[in-house]
Amino acid sequence: MGTSDACIVTCAVTGAVTTKAQHEAIPYTPEEYAKQVRDARDSGASVVHIHARVPEGTPSVEIEDFRAITEAVLDVTPDIVINYSTGTVGIPVDKRIAYLAALKPELGALNMGSMNYAKWSETRKDFVFNFVFQNPFDEIIALVTAMKAHGIKPEMECFDVGHVESIEPLVDMGLLDEPMQFSLILGVLGGIQADARNLAHMASRVPTGSNWEVIGISRDQWMLVSAASALGGNVRVGLEDNFYLPDGEKASGNGELVEWAVKAVQLTGRRPAEPNEARAMLGIAIPDRAA
Amino acid sequence: MGTSDACIVTCAVTGAVTTKAQHEAIPYTPEEYAKQVRDARDSGASVVHIHARVPEGTPSVEIEDFRAITEAVLDVTPDIVINYSTGTVGIPVDKRIAYLAALKPELGALNMGSMNYAKWSETRKDFVFNFVFQNPFDEIIALVTAMKAHGIKPEMECFDVGHVESIEPLVDMGLLDEPMQFSLILGVLGGIQADARNLAHMASRVPTGSNWEVIGISRDQWMLVSAASALGGNVRVGLEDNFYLPDGEKASGNGELVEWAVKAVQLTGRRPAEPNEARAMLGIAIPDRAA
Amino acid sequence: MGTSDACIVTCAVTGAVTTKAQHEAIPYTPEEYAKQVRDARDSGASVVHIHARVPEGTPSVEIEDFRAITEAVLDVTPDIVINYSTGTVGIPVDKRIAYLAALKPELGALNMGSMNYAKWSETRKDFVFNFVFQNPFDEIIALVTAMKAHGIKPEMECFDVGHVESIEPLVDMGLLDEPMQFSLILGVLGGIQADARNLAHMASRVPTGSNWEVIGISRDQWMLVSAASALGGNVRVGLEDNFYLPDGEKASGNGELVEWAVKAVQLTGRRPAEPNEARAMLGIAIPDRAA
Amino acid sequence: MGTSDACIVTCAVTGAVTTKAQHEAIPYTPEEYAKQVRDARDSGASVVHIHARVPEGTPSVEIEDFRAITEAVLDVTPDIVINYSTGTVGIPVDKRIAYLAALKPELGALNMGSMNYAKWSETRKDFVFNFVFQNPFDEIIALVTAMKAHGIKPEMECFDVGHVESIEPLVDMGLLDEPMQFSLILGVLGGIQADARNLAHMASRVPTGSNWEVIGISRDQWMLVSAASALGGNVRVGLEDNFYLPDGEKASGNGELVEWAVKAVQLTGRRPAEPNEARAMLGIAIPDRAA
Repeated sequence: MGTSDACIVTCAVTGAVTTKAQHEAIPYTPEEYAKQVRDARDSGASVVHIHARVPEGTPSVEIEDFRAITEAVLDVTPDIVINYSTGTVGIPVDKRIAYLAALKPELGALNMGSMNYAKWSETRKDFVFNFVFQNPFDEIIALVTAMKAHGIKPEMECFDVGHVESIEPLVDMGLLDEPMQFSLILGVLGGIQADARNLAHMASRVPTGSNWEVIGISRDQWMLVSAASALGGNVRVGLEDNFYLPDGEKASGNGELVEWAVKAVQLTGRRPAEPNEARAMLGIAIPDRAA
Repeated sequence: MGTSDACIVTCAVTGAVTTKAQHEAIPYTPEEYAKQVRDARDSGASVVHIHARVPEGTPSVEIEDFRAITEAVLDVTPDIVINYSTGTVGIPVDKRIAYLAALKPELGALNMGSMNYAKWSETRKDFVFNFVFQNPFDEIIALVTAMKAHGIKPEMECFDVGHVESIEPLVDMGLLDEPMQFSLILGVLGGIQADARNLAHMASRVPTGSNWEVIGISRDQWMLVSAASALGGNVRVGLEDNFYLPDGEKASGNGELVEWAVKAVQLTGRRPAEPNEARAMLGIAIPDRAA
Repeated sequence: MGTSDACIVTCAVTGAVTTKAQHEAIPYTPEEYAKQVRDARDSGASVVHIHARVPEGTPSVEIEDFRAITEAVLDVTPDIVINYSTGTVGIPVDKRIAYLAALKPELGALNMGSMNYAKWSETRKDFVFNFVFQNPFDEIIALVTAMKAHGIKPEMECFDVGHVESIEPLVDMGLLDEPMQFSLILGVLGGIQADARNLAHMASRVPTGSNWEVIGISRDQWMLVSAASALGGNVRVGLEDNFYLPDGEKASGNGELVEWAVKAVQLTGRRPAEPNEARAMLGIAIPDRAA
Repeated sequence: MGTSDACIVTCAVTGAVTTKAQHEAIPYTPEEYAKQVRDARDSGASVVHIHARVPEGTPSVEIEDFRAITEAVLDVTPDIVINYSTGTVGIPVDKRIAYLAALKPELGALNMGSMNYAKWSETRKDFVFNFVFQNPFDEIIALVTAMKAHGIKPEMECFDVGHVESIEPLVDMGLLDEPMQFSLILGVLGGIQADARNLAHMASRVPTGSNWEVIGISRDQWMLVSAASALGGNVRVGLEDNFYLPDGEKASGNGELVEWAVKAVQLTGRRPAEPNEARAMLGIAIPDRAA
């Protein structure tokens, strides 16, 4: 239960559904991605989580868009750890595997379960959105098999306790290498809610020796970031998850969100991990560009 | 966190997918149901959970089958609390509401979330079964609305922490009356696993003043029954969930399973609740037949 | 388990064993106390915890010293909530009751148990200090009886889970009024150690509706402050407990320690309580001077 | 967090303060000890915890009494694991070390902390007993040093979370060998109370790879035995701790208490460990008499 001094701060710079209309700093072009990642790195992030877009802003799963963004990012921030999203709803698994196989990011996101995925508005007495988020075991296995083949470490996104424990067949099939990496996502209605005790319990189900980070949605994120750092876990922030600073002000961009995450980490007596320190913790080889 | 002296023991006598080929005591005819329920009651059960069947054994959602079974059961065990399953996969919600509306059981099961629903065989290195169990919020709301209209207390079946917390919109819509009743089901792959710490945490998310029972699948059930009773919760056993006694011997029938559950309850210093005591705990009126 | 928006920040400005040789901002004279408390209040503290001293710095349990300090403090910070230490080792209970009875602070500290009280140095392979801290039930009852007689709310200092649960005879004797106030102190060897999971569990034993704050010793304090605020509790900082800021720099004084505590509280989406808000939470009447 | 199939059942056959006036089966003479231990072993116990007495019943810390009892016990139950009490209040440490050194039991009890040690009667509104139980670090270190010198494994008796965590200086001094053995004692007022969540948390502080057993006082014992077995721990019962069966009937003797403990263990899907299996789990060599 000991806590490591170094805490990996990940920045999810853009997401799939956010737009410049909501926040002007959301990156669309490779240059904008590069700028946001540089800012995040300067503020203390060591990993970037990327959803690709075409330069006009529409989400993309095309190899070329992922490539252009990644090259622009690494051009100005060569040491950052690269993590690709794979969680796009409605895109066939093959398509999601294609860009992983072509570009071999260091980490690849992997949704570990199915669930009701909803948001309820107490004001409107109605759902803001509400659907069944399907991630059947067949798709999970196809993705993780491809990741293993291409040397990509799965970042297992877990929205409830049973998602963490769904590693059982994957471990038994030999598809996961230790240390494993878990993202614990709290606050989606249908999944586990944003509460420090929920986080503590969920983290206790992560196998000893593996890593976990917390992902919180909206302003509850900040409470979860503090709790995660106090519990010895890693943290993720960024415009994908939340636009606002702890005081309710809109963040100027990803850099400022990371800055506050680092403050939260330091307040628990820890410090942000450097990228190669993060790689050592995650069990990822140091690429030439970061050596 | 105090524990009540009285513990409600529920018996799930038959289930939907079990057959006489697997266990000869599985009831098919109304008379067989009546016999199994009588045995369960004699051993200490105060609630019976019923999946209907046609007399030849096939699962049924017809009003007449539910009626015949219920009448036969109450004929020999008039004081038992009646709980109907509604969780049948592939049956439209209207059909499930029809028998609730016609027969008004005291409790009605209500699946509270979607999930991967699977079982993995370490021996065969393959899934025994594996599907996405879909219970969208729209269906949940339709069922709970019907239950409220007909004075049926929902028995909310939760396979993970987020399912418990999915009461949020229902509470906000005024569809749930206190005390609420939660069933915590552990051990389905895709949902939360069978572990006493998982149970303790999941139970801690049940609102104060509401009731919860544990449902365990296969032999792990017994560990969960002991843990639940020690934690102050209620318990469910029966041929639907498990055929075997704690020592690995096949149970002769539902009566013997309840007998062992009562032993587990007594070993924690508690005693099985009488049916009207169970009704008082659950907030259900005493029907004439049980007065 | 919900968290209140407002978080009571207490400042323990001086302690009994610290000296100006260790930290020049430790107050000795009434004027120095007044200055430190004003700074703490300006930074967001609403409660001050006072150990008295003679103006030369030696700890004192004399009424006149408590009176002079309190008057000086209230002269410049009339709205602050006043909490007196009573935990002095080696001083008879009568003596400790005398200044409570004479001056009637709003809160009075009350050690709730006996324990080994030690600090181990891994470097020196020896104890830094090591004694049996005796707080027998007879003394506890004498103190809490006096507090009740004089309208002083006990601030129950608990160094382990069993100390929290030691309220049992006091509650049964009718000596405690709700809401009760618990201080959870982690990190003294012999008592419970500084760990976020320990804090979460210990806080779960506080009766619903009562209040708790965390007290951490040395730099681990900051991790505990973040964890407590994420868990919905209140927090205490101050030169009594710790001289250092989260980054390891020596704090300039109590004001700067409170400033960082407030930052930690805000990072979890909460804000420091105003003094009268704190009184409402603690169930204390608003005195004329603060109306 | 996995649970071992085998569960070590310890029997505390006599204690220090119980008398034949309270329960006729309390052993006084070596022959009576031998009979009680044989019964306990026959029912499934693999370890016996011994407080010595003179044949007239008064507690003894004399080498000769321990020797006579141990010889009588081993004469009829040669394979049982021997554990000596060392927790006698008011006896100098040297005296307690003398019989350990002379007789070298396989396990020796070691109280790990100081505390208020009390029992409150709600009926009488008074303490049944109430004192400060002092076990300063100096005595702990003297005892554990002697045990290490004589190849005796300490059975560390912990009445609260901080007692478990008080191993820190002992580990740092190299006085404890892994796997360590912890007894978690719940239900003494002043220490942690008898509650399944308390037990789960306390057990979570035991270092991975070490062993723990639960000790419960009076009838709450049975709830704790079930909870401990569900959590994967070991259990202790016996006339020292409790005279009553789960149903409230007085037990005929230690054998019957062990019988019910074994039932509780089996109800969680586990089985009582054989003595040499217990030795393997505890890291104790098999003595010639048990080979």
